[in-house]
Amino acid sequence: MDVIRVFEKQQFAAEKMKKVGLFDTQNLFCDLYCLEPGQEQKSHTHAHEDKVYFVLEGKVRVRIGGDEKELSANMLTLAPAGSEHGVANHTNTRSTLLVFMAPKPQH
Amino acid sequence: MDVIRVFEKQQFAAEKMKKVGLFDTQNLFCDLYCLEPGQEQKSHTHAHEDKVYFVLEGKVRVRIGGDEKELSANMLTLAPAGSEHGVANHTNTRSTLLVFMAPKPQH
Repeated sequence: MDVIRVFEKQQFAAEKMKKVGLFDTQNLFCDLYCLEPGQEQKSHTHAHEDKVYFVLEGKVRVRIGGDEKELSANMLTLAPAGSEHGVANHTNTRSTLLVFMAPKPQH
Repeated sequence: MDVIRVFEKQQFAAEKMKKVGLFDTQNLFCDLYCLEPGQEQKSHTHAHEDKVYFVLEGKVRVRIGGDEKELSANMLTLAPAGSEHGVANHTNTRSTLLVFMAPKPQH
């Protein structure tokens, strides 16, 4: 039984958003996304996978299917399979998200 | 694009642990588990589904596959498919967890 303290897993990189794998099973991914100010994960689409974003700290702009909203800590949203989605830290402070994706992509 | 503030979704019930559905797709469940002091979700097993527990507030004892650990806010653990698992609030204050399960059970 692995217990993870999410804030001990934070890693930031000057070059780009850092994705830290937490759990990786046959059924799902669970990752930490760590964004320095100005960093983003560009919009992209997964044909078959749903993704859930949960903000742990800071604020981000989440884009899903042409919509865009600002999320702060303890806010959650869903990017359904087939929807274009991305996340950007538009603020002056770091932001961290917990991200779940299922099923696991087959590519 | 639905944005959920998790602490606005909390619901507690005197009779038993309250499970609040947040997202329910073809691929996953995302729920809030709200436990009054002394409440629990008894140990059970899903043959094919992985479950991730993330503690939002309070403390709980999580049991997975015969192991048991105390988790507090911002701690995360995985109950893999086929492992017996359960969660109990053994404290004097409320506890709340964010719970993900994938794939979606077929029963």
